[in-house]
Amino acid sequence: MREIVSGELKRASPSQLKDICGEIREEILSAVSVCGGHLSSNLGAVELTVALHRVFDFPRDKIVFDVGHQCYAHKLLSGRVGAFRTLRQEGGLSGFPKRGESEYDCYGTGHAGTAISAALGFAKARDLKGEDHAVIALVGDGSFNNGLIYEALNSLKILKTNVLIVLNDNGMSISETVGSMAAVLKEMRSAGEGCGGEELRGSCCELSGRADAIPAEDVRLFEHFGLRYMGVVNGHDMGELLASLEQAKAALKEGSVLLHVHTRKGFGHAFCENAPTETHGVGSGGGTEYSAALGEELARLAEKDKRVIAVTAAMTDSLGLRGFFEKFPGRAFDVGICEEHASILCASLAAAGMRPYYAIYSTFLQRAYDEIIHDVCAQALPVVFCIDRAGITGRDGETHQGVFDLSYLSLIPNLTIAIPKDIAEFRAMLRMSIHMDGPLAIRYPRESTEGAEQPESSLEMGKFEVLHSTMSDIVLLAAGERCLHIARRVLWRARREGLDATLINARFLKPLDEGLLSAIGAHTVITLEDNVLIGGLGDAVSRFYRSSGKKIFSFGYPDAFIPHGAVGDLMREYGLDEDAVLACIREHYARR
Amino acid sequence: MREIVSGELKRASPSQLKDICGEIREEILSAVSVCGGHLSSNLGAVELTVALHRVFDFPRDKIVFDVGHQCYAHKLLSGRVGAFRTLRQEGGLSGFPKRGESEYDCYGTGHAGTAISAALGFAKARDLKGEDHAVIALVGDGSFNNGLIYEALNSLKILKTNVLIVLNDNGMSISETVGSMAAVLKEMRSAGEGCGGEELRGSCCELSGRADAIPAEDVRLFEHFGLRYMGVVNGHDMGELLASLEQAKAALKEGSVLLHVHTRKGFGHAFCENAPTETHGVGSGGGTEYSAALGEELARLAEKDKRVIAVTAAMTDSLGLRGFFEKFPGRAFDVGICEEHASILCASLAAAGMRPYYAIYSTFLQRAYDEIIHDVCAQALPVVFCIDRAGITGRDGETHQGVFDLSYLSLIPNLTIAIPKDIAEFRAMLRMSIHMDGPLAIRYPRESTEGAEQPESSLEMGKFEVLHSTMSDIVLLAAGERCLHIARRVLWRARREGLDATLINARFLKPLDEGLLSAIGAHTVITLEDNVLIGGLGDAVSRFYRSSGKKIFSFGYPDAFIPHGAVGDLMREYGLDEDAVLACIREHYARR
Repeated sequence: MREIVSGELKRASPSQLKDICGEIREEILSAVSVCGGHLSSNLGAVELTVALHRVFDFPRDKIVFDVGHQCYAHKLLSGRVGAFRTLRQEGGLSGFPKRGESEYDCYGTGHAGTAISAALGFAKARDLKGEDHAVIALVGDGSFNNGLIYEALNSLKILKTNVLIVLNDNGMSISETVGSMAAVLKEMRSAGEGCGGEELRGSCCELSGRADAIPAEDVRLFEHFGLRYMGVVNGHDMGELLASLEQAKAALKEGSVLLHVHTRKGFGHAFCENAPTETHGVGSGGGTEYSAALGEELARLAEKDKRVIAVTAAMTDSLGLRGFFEKFPGRAFDVGICEEHASILCASLAAAGMRPYYAIYSTFLQRAYDEIIHDVCAQALPVVFCIDRAGITGRDGETHQGVFDLSYLSLIPNLTIAIPKDIAEFRAMLRMSIHMDGPLAIRYPRESTEGAEQPESSLEMGKFEVLHSTMSDIVLLAAGERCLHIARRVLWRARREGLDATLINARFLKPLDEGLLSAIGAHTVITLEDNVLIGGLGDAVSRFYRSSGKKIFSFGYPDAFIPHGAVGDLMREYGLDEDAVLACIREHYARR
Repeated sequence: MREIVSGELKRASPSQLKDICGEIREEILSAVSVCGGHLSSNLGAVELTVALHRVFDFPRDKIVFDVGHQCYAHKLLSGRVGAFRTLRQEGGLSGFPKRGESEYDCYGTGHAGTAISAALGFAKARDLKGEDHAVIALVGDGSFNNGLIYEALNSLKILKTNVLIVLNDNGMSISETVGSMAAVLKEMRSAGEGCGGEELRGSCCELSGRADAIPAEDVRLFEHFGLRYMGVVNGHDMGELLASLEQAKAALKEGSVLLHVHTRKGFGHAFCENAPTETHGVGSGGGTEYSAALGEELARLAEKDKRVIAVTAAMTDSLGLRGFFEKFPGRAFDVGICEEHASILCASLAAAGMRPYYAIYSTFLQRAYDEIIHDVCAQALPVVFCIDRAGITGRDGETHQGVFDLSYLSLIPNLTIAIPKDIAEFRAMLRMSIHMDGPLAIRYPRESTEGAEQPESSLEMGKFEVLHSTMSDIVLLAAGERCLHIARRVLWRARREGLDATLINARFLKPLDEGLLSAIGAHTVITLEDNVLIGGLGDAVSRFYRSSGKKIFSFGYPDAFIPHGAVGDLMREYGLDEDAVLACIREHYARR
């Protein structure tokens, strides 16, 4: 598509605006089909974004995108058409707003629920500096479940500043939004539209001026927090959007405003509209996924053991738990984007004798850090954290890499940390977990590079596995399937050069297999982990061997945020490089 | 006081119940005057706790105390009178509910906002197991600001189970509760009581049956979440409490209930009622405190620099910021118990050009972990975290020790971590911080053991300070005032034995002073830190010296949760022991 030049939007006629929306939609579809990315959420926000750019004056006015996965139209309207086909490619545009990328991206996001807090900071700074511009938080209904939103709303009156909250309500998180707030919003949508709320299409019904149809107590829910409620607006009717936004802009002089916009996820593309969950994110996955094994194995456990419960925070499908939820609806809970609450729920379920399995992405587990320490581990409760998307996750960039978990978990007392070498071992760990009497974290990447299942290894709690034993003076300790894959390739190359090394599957970071480590006679120990080096496996091994005279070389990621790119490329570039490991073996090779 | 034997409460007459309340109040006052502890919050909850024990059947019924600092009457009513004078003493009763201590403590707490989530877990487990008992969450109004409460309320309907939420509303957190929810609760209290809400005394006015005076939209606020709202009840009128709790117990058969109880913090003790903030916690502090220096130095900075802002999460007084708040009301924000929101607010204030200082206790900062990573550090924004109560904090036990921060912070890219050696250096670090262009964490304990200010050292970013230089083959690296105090005493004793060591103030954990470390010729390096050993200073130094042949010995805390006790005792017992450090010097002493 062509670059929309400055001022063009401001002058465009209604039909020209419609054309621009069409161009943007086409460009998003084309780019995502090449680069992957978030599809349905972006298609659903096109008219709304165009209307915001028409009514407000960015970058003078500030907009914070909650989660940020719906910012594509914004990028296309802020001088980034030319770069758009580099979306999510290394060195190219980020799939999320990013301060370094454009002055139009005033605040970077990636995780849910941060936008209103962030908008309040910009608004307060504006007031203190005596400036005059609008600050907008664009928030999806899925994020409205998150506690952060409540904390921010609760402080609107404390901060005495004005922000515009645009609630982009499509009734969906990745899948359907759950919980009481979602029900309230749905009630408001339905009442406000007077057309059942289910059949939003272009301008199927007159929506404006129906605010008085919405139950006063629902409106009051927002007014409690000092917000003027405006809505419900049809998010695909440009005329209605423009009128409402102008009205909201004017109202902003008097106080904070919540504009409730009803959109349809995937709007404008029949396939996406009909399959919004499946087209939420379009990736380049492939191969067997750990998530599928999780769902299967948990279901097997649940059949035999009535104590087994699965908990997720709005990620049922991507964590592989759809089947479990269908089979055991009474023992499967999706609590919405509430990672903290989910952790405590698991802790108390465990305290009451149940066996909760909490499946979550590595990066989102950061949200529950205090609860892991304070609720689960301080009480040594048998909660199993199934940590998916661990290690480098690739194209979503800094905010989504799962490269910190080994470090932030390893310092927590009472926690066992397991890292399976393949899907068969992952299944064995899950079966083992049912007999544990304390908390366990199992971390794994998305895909199994092996593709097929391995014969099952004999798994023993806290014990490493020796995969290849030699008289070489070098030992390779590799954690997890990706690192073992690299280690095996390195060994294969090394042996062609007449070199060799012992290879160990370091499948428990905690407890560390001190017995095996003590027995290692080799003088050079090389560790590999799909994690930052600070605080991970390398450090744990170094701590053990401190003052032993052994030489330890650790491969993993440096002390930096890792941007978006392809998983394999990033792993290699940021520290897990076969050539470098091989060079290390060459340099230190000797026979014992 | 005597032990209240089983069944006694159930049979007691109204006047006997009143006597029991009197006995409990006396016992709490006496014990706290000896052992320290939470005073006003416990005094205010006596009648409510007696009434709960009368109406419900613990431990069959389950009760979760939010924060848990108001559980003293519960302990006295559950067989722990005899042990009560060991409160908060090492090996004695915990000041918080603790699973290991009594079957009446079904769930341990310490941090705010967890009780409803925990109650939901117990309730759901009960349903799944086909049991029949009540589950109660006792929550203060201060916690109602926290996002966790909202996340739990939002999932009431998802979980389809029944809990009783008792809102113990005294209008106070540690100081007055802030925010919109607090305003709503105040409105409800006032309307429900019809006596202004400010003059709650025994039975000054008829309270029962006034629920219809409460605005319907306020009640609806809770009904949205699937709660039946009951209130407002006078929390010091036993008759009213018992009637309401019986009513709530019956209603629990039909669904979840919120019982709104109005109490007065410090009730029954004139001094506490009049000074609830000052008598919230009664400790055995003393000496100069870092918090006072923080308040003074920030005020000085704020006078010169209009960008300076102070943010706290309901801890203004204990963090030393009362004066700042009075002097700069427009640039000081207490957002309530919302550690996550506060962090993002700081991040966006910094993104907009301000210089936010976020003061918080080490243990509570765990709540904001994702926001430190995702909002502050990934964007490299100049937010200064002033981390008070770092290291062992003592008598509040496991949930309040600040012994993890060096570890969980050191793995975060872009973050500078400073550990002042005394208050003068702390002030210098604060002055330095105003010129930094990225995030900074400064961590310090409550008290300065030195008592007086030291002459100011010349502080250089990322540079250690050599305090004592010798030709000994041993170097001591100590982080923070407490560890330097131990190191100095060890050195003094060592020199009396003809031994010696170089002493270095390791005042930046990150960036590590690699220049100085490289220049150290000694072969034995001893590190001291008031933190767990995993992931802290010792590990960072070991990582640097890896493969150097140096011997590293690290002193700090083991991989365990540290219970309550006196700070000095715990430090010594858990790993910072003068004798042990001296023994290490004796063993490795040599001259270079």
